[in-house]
Amino acid sequence: MSDIKSLTDALLRFRDERDWQQFHNSKDLALAISIESAELLELFLWKGNEEADRQRIKEELADIMSYCLLLAEKQGLDVKDIILDKIEHNKSKYPVSKAKGSAKKYDEL
Amino acid sequence: MSDIKSLTDALLRFRDERDWQQFHNSKDLALAISIESAELLELFLWKGNEEADRQRIKEELADIMSYCLLLAEKQGLDVKDIILDKIEHNKSKYPVSKAKGSAKKYDEL
Amino acid sequence: MSDIKSLTDALLRFRDERDWQQFHNSKDLALAISIESAELLELFLWKGNEEADRQRIKEELADIMSYCLLLAEKQGLDVKDIILDKIEHNKSKYPVSKAKGSAKKYDEL
Amino acid sequence: MSDIKSLTDALLRFRDERDWQQFHNSKDLALAISIESAELLELFLWKGNEEADRQRIKEELADIMSYCLLLAEKQGLDVKDIILDKIEHNKSKYPVSKAKGSAKKYDEL
Repeated sequence: MSDIKSLTDALLRFRDERDWQQFHNSKDLALAISIESAELLELFLWKGNEEADRQRIKEELADIMSYCLLLAEKQGLDVKDIILDKIEHNKSKYPVSKAKGSAKKYDEL
Repeated sequence: MSDIKSLTDALLRFRDERDWQQFHNSKDLALAISIESAELLELFLWKGNEEADRQRIKEELADIMSYCLLLAEKQGLDVKDIILDKIEHNKSKYPVSKAKGSAKKYDEL
Repeated sequence: MSDIKSLTDALLRFRDERDWQQFHNSKDLALAISIESAELLELFLWKGNEEADRQRIKEELADIMSYCLLLAEKQGLDVKDIILDKIEHNKSKYPVSKAKGSAKKYDEL
Repeated sequence: MSDIKSLTDALLRFRDERDWQQFHNSKDLALAISIESAELLELFLWKGNEEADRQRIKEELADIMSYCLLLAEKQGLDVKDIILDKIEHNKSKYPVSKAKGSAKKYDEL
């Protein structure tokens, strides 16, 4: 079994043991992802680029990714496929010839 | 090779072909995760819980998870381990006996 | 009339001419505030602390504050009062003797 | 004195008594706005549109608006002007004839 599949299964098991499926509509899962992302962001507030606490980065990243896996599962999306598709899509938005060494957005390149 | 490892490798290859490693400090990766999460959230704005466009959910989820994988890699974190650790941690924060069927936060249970 | 009152009135007039009150429940207004805040954040992505475009900061700040004024109005909150109350509250959370020159959160002081 | 001016003055006084101006660069103020916005959002997580705690909405709105006022002041922006300008701008993006009763984004109208 793939590791994404086994992680998703572990998350679903945790959820179902608590009867939480009833709360996990797609909109609230999207809220949860934003909220956890802001908790990650807070670790860097008023700090230098590499000054956040690594233990807490670890926990917040785990939370964000867990809700992402749950939303992907709810939507019937294969995480591996959607990331590989997005990389392909970004290759045409950000061709190496234009994007190399530049932090500009594709519409400013 | 695991899924997560092969996705991370594809993301690093995409990044390095464009010389973008120089921009990818941990703080800005955390910003990118929050920004992409809000783009996901926007798909649900003024809408019902399941009314967002699935194609766009797919793309925004891919963006969020891509930056999460890049930040995990930068911090030397194993995504599988950190999610499994967090599930274990949450089992004690949210024991089935207290949390079943409740959407309350652990400190209100 | 106070500035805040006249701004709120202008926002309500804009909203009501478009029959948008029906969409403006408190939860979606909170989503809108988060989404606009992330658009502000994006202006700083991969950039130095003072490198964002001032014209766009202006527009995003206006959007965030507009939704804040609309949510305050919906909740029957007086913006001036709630900010002054919060400053008083923060004075005890962050006493000058402890907080001076420190960026720590109150629970780490 | 206008109420926005007097609130900004109170916030600056609070900040300067603690020597916090050194931390308040524009990028971190934008982070703070996003973080506080997500704290507001969290009050609605797994809840109906009007089920959040009003006392806590009050506090989070105050935090968001305080950081907005501080960023506006740092950028030399007049809050009243920028909101009135944005309303004018939105009048052309969302003409009543097209936008009435519709929650669509301007580029989908």
